[in-house]
Amino acid sequence: MNYNAVIKILCTLLLFLAASLIPPASIAFYYQEGDFIAFLITIALSITIGLAGYFRTKLLRELRPKESFLIVTAGWLLFAVIGALPFTISGFIPSYTDAFFETMSGFTTTGASILTNIEALPHGLLFWRSFTHWLGGMGIILLSLAILPLLGVGGMQLFKAEVPGPTHDKLTPRIKNTANLLWGVYILFSLAETILLKLAGMKWFDAVCHTFGTMATGGFSTQNTSVGQYNNPFIDYIIIIFMIIAGMNFALHYRALRGKLLYYLKDPETKYFLGIIAIATILIGVDVWRITGHQFFKTIQYSLFQVVSIITTTGYGTADYEQWSKLSQVILFFLMFFGGCAGSTGGGIKIIRVLILIKIGINEIKKLIHPQAVFTIRVGNIVISREIAANISGFFLLYTLLSVLGILFMSALGLDLETAFSSVAATINNIGPGLGQVGPMDNYAAIPAAGKWCLSFLMLAGRLEIFTVIILFTFSFWKK
Amino acid sequence: MNYNAVIKILCTLLLFLAASLIPPASIAFYYQEGDFIAFLITIALSITIGLAGYFRTKLLRELRPKESFLIVTAGWLLFAVIGALPFTISGFIPSYTDAFFETMSGFTTTGASILTNIEALPHGLLFWRSFTHWLGGMGIILLSLAILPLLGVGGMQLFKAEVPGPTHDKLTPRIKNTANLLWGVYILFSLAETILLKLAGMKWFDAVCHTFGTMATGGFSTQNTSVGQYNNPFIDYIIIIFMIIAGMNFALHYRALRGKLLYYLKDPETKYFLGIIAIATILIGVDVWRITGHQFFKTIQYSLFQVVSIITTTGYGTADYEQWSKLSQVILFFLMFFGGCAGSTGGGIKIIRVLILIKIGINEIKKLIHPQAVFTIRVGNIVISREIAANISGFFLLYTLLSVLGILFMSALGLDLETAFSSVAATINNIGPGLGQVGPMDNYAAIPAAGKWCLSFLMLAGRLEIFTVIILFTFSFWKK
Repeated sequence: MNYNAVIKILCTLLLFLAASLIPPASIAFYYQEGDFIAFLITIALSITIGLAGYFRTKLLRELRPKESFLIVTAGWLLFAVIGALPFTISGFIPSYTDAFFETMSGFTTTGASILTNIEALPHGLLFWRSFTHWLGGMGIILLSLAILPLLGVGGMQLFKAEVPGPTHDKLTPRIKNTANLLWGVYILFSLAETILLKLAGMKWFDAVCHTFGTMATGGFSTQNTSVGQYNNPFIDYIIIIFMIIAGMNFALHYRALRGKLLYYLKDPETKYFLGIIAIATILIGVDVWRITGHQFFKTIQYSLFQVVSIITTTGYGTADYEQWSKLSQVILFFLMFFGGCAGSTGGGIKIIRVLILIKIGINEIKKLIHPQAVFTIRVGNIVISREIAANISGFFLLYTLLSVLGILFMSALGLDLETAFSSVAATINNIGPGLGQVGPMDNYAAIPAAGKWCLSFLMLAGRLEIFTVIILFTFSFWKK
Repeated sequence: MNYNAVIKILCTLLLFLAASLIPPASIAFYYQEGDFIAFLITIALSITIGLAGYFRTKLLRELRPKESFLIVTAGWLLFAVIGALPFTISGFIPSYTDAFFETMSGFTTTGASILTNIEALPHGLLFWRSFTHWLGGMGIILLSLAILPLLGVGGMQLFKAEVPGPTHDKLTPRIKNTANLLWGVYILFSLAETILLKLAGMKWFDAVCHTFGTMATGGFSTQNTSVGQYNNPFIDYIIIIFMIIAGMNFALHYRALRGKLLYYLKDPETKYFLGIIAIATILIGVDVWRITGHQFFKTIQYSLFQVVSIITTTGYGTADYEQWSKLSQVILFFLMFFGGCAGSTGGGIKIIRVLILIKIGINEIKKLIHPQAVFTIRVGNIVISREIAANISGFFLLYTLLSVLGILFMSALGLDLETAFSSVAATINNIGPGLGQVGPMDNYAAIPAAGKWCLSFLMLAGRLEIFTVIILFTFSFWKK
């Protein structure tokens, strides 16, 4: 392990974090609500450690996979550890456990909150909270479209072709170009959404913060009752559209913006993504309408919002779905696991993996009928190799194993089954709200401290596609 | 498809069913409790249809896999359809839906009951109910050790070596020898348990019925409060020991009875099976003891009974585990999925498959660390081929898919999440009691009719290792 290089890059990231703290610090200075000093201290600390580490280490050669794995996990962890400081130093979230949970939830674009009164936070901290989402989303686009495919994590090498100039074993400067292009797309959509939300009636501050939450499929709001607070169909539909955009593969967006709009229609994952949203919305919409007898199109609007919010793993709310029927709740529960498309900012298993997993199962049935025949798994025109199929099966098995261990741990803390199951599902899939005690109208404040650390770990593991984190817990990773 | 052969074998099975109805009919005749005529009508019907079909069809050539798949599923279904008649004709279970559910639960060795007052049933029907378990268990031993390995279902070909004189594509008369040997073991253990239960203080009738429920890992009792009724530690421990025996691979028992006792110790699946029982018992025992403060060894006894009862998918109860802590309940919930060893009468995923699935996951991590290396999956000394690993992954994926669809269906009927989840888990894994509305002190009477049919289907699919049933729903199976 080339620790020198690892430390150098982590320190560079720390300097980037210090720069990212300047906008919220400026807002805190403008509003003078008692959080400015906390930002200053955090910035000073980040710069000191960052510079000290940066100049004492040398990046002698390119990174190998092992170092990349360590940097990814350690980087996200470092951001949460340092990013939590403004909350605790300012005294607005006195418990560091809570502040860490909130910040990890931000950077992993989960959106699970321990705050009982969000609106009591000063503007600077509110901005920072939402900004962690946006930065996390940026990181995820880079990770899922450029870094993980090279590392071969969870079938992500399916997208190797998306990276301009594929490289073999080492992370080359080419990634920088990919990153710049994709981030350009991300920033463009963010600007568009902010302006639209402002036009629909939001204040600039809220428009920016909600855009951060949408584009990163995060879900932090500046309002206690989330997006439901505005009770404005225009705002609902704007957020719906941008959640869908954020839940799609950013490589497709990039191509579309270069005029190749047809790629959207050609992409099988996008088709299934939109198809599942349509079916689930109708099922839940009709179900809720049948029971409540509310206005039909209003019910469809609420249903669409909730379906998109959960399948993209955003977690915004406009309705208390715990009041809906059991069927609707179970549909939403299973949607939690789908997640968005690969290459999006969404969490979860991802549509493409679910699709391939189902095809693997069907394939085995075909083999029983024709034991001598050789079957290939196809998604659209792409033939899925046996290696990638095995990789995705392995992903699903580890994902299941980690969820089971998480549920056991949470129930050992005395939580009821519904809360234990759904808090794990809502964090490992990076959604935010779950069911039971952590439902859309509740929050994670009442979860015991040990549970908050466990869920923080699941957020990170889920966000980094399981493998990236689990690998650090193996003996052979650390063996020379 | 050679329908001629399929019908001939199904009619032979019907004649076997008619013969199996003679013991309960004799008991009904002896006790004169109003169920004798119902048995006579069912026997007459079975013989008429059976003989008519038998003499009108010819078995021209040996069976091919397709025909075997159809016979297995249709045979189990036929037994439940006809076997339910005595309950309905006698009027003791007036609803045919309920009678079918109860009989399917019997033949699949599930043990889920719709009866609110078991003790109100006459002796003949009580005997028949338990006897369906025992016959189902016999069928499963044949199926899992001789038929499914040849059909390549769900990695069961791992056990091809167990079948004396492996055959290739056709089911040969050799299977008959295997079956006779294995059933000899089954009958021997059944005799031993009956005698021990009698010695421990049960009446002969109850001893026989509880033996049927134990050896088949079924779970039907003759008492409303299950084995808890006797409140006798000797009975508890006898049943615990025989549940463990029933949850082990019968091929190992056969070898052990021929003096090769060492095979038990060499078998990795047995080691894990016993290890998991030990760990779960201690965890739950200590947890319950810590909370209730009851006598330590008594708590361990209850904990051991419940752990063994659930992991072997028997479903007998001596304690209301819904009163235990959430942690204990969640451990029991996950044990539901393990099931016994392959080649046992137990249901569930089976220890060996869980083991291989975990190793598949770990393998993918190893591959990330050493992308060039080739790793093999081993269980004990056996190397698991890529084909078998893919087969087992496929099994798990279809199993998950079917469970999800089942849970969606059950919640669409308005059941709460806990009941929907655990009723599906308790039936697809052939256990019996679940949590919530279908907990150990409740029953399936209150489940809507559509839910009973859905759960009956899951019992059958789970019992026949998913593939065997699902394959009949594919287009290519029926294509010429």
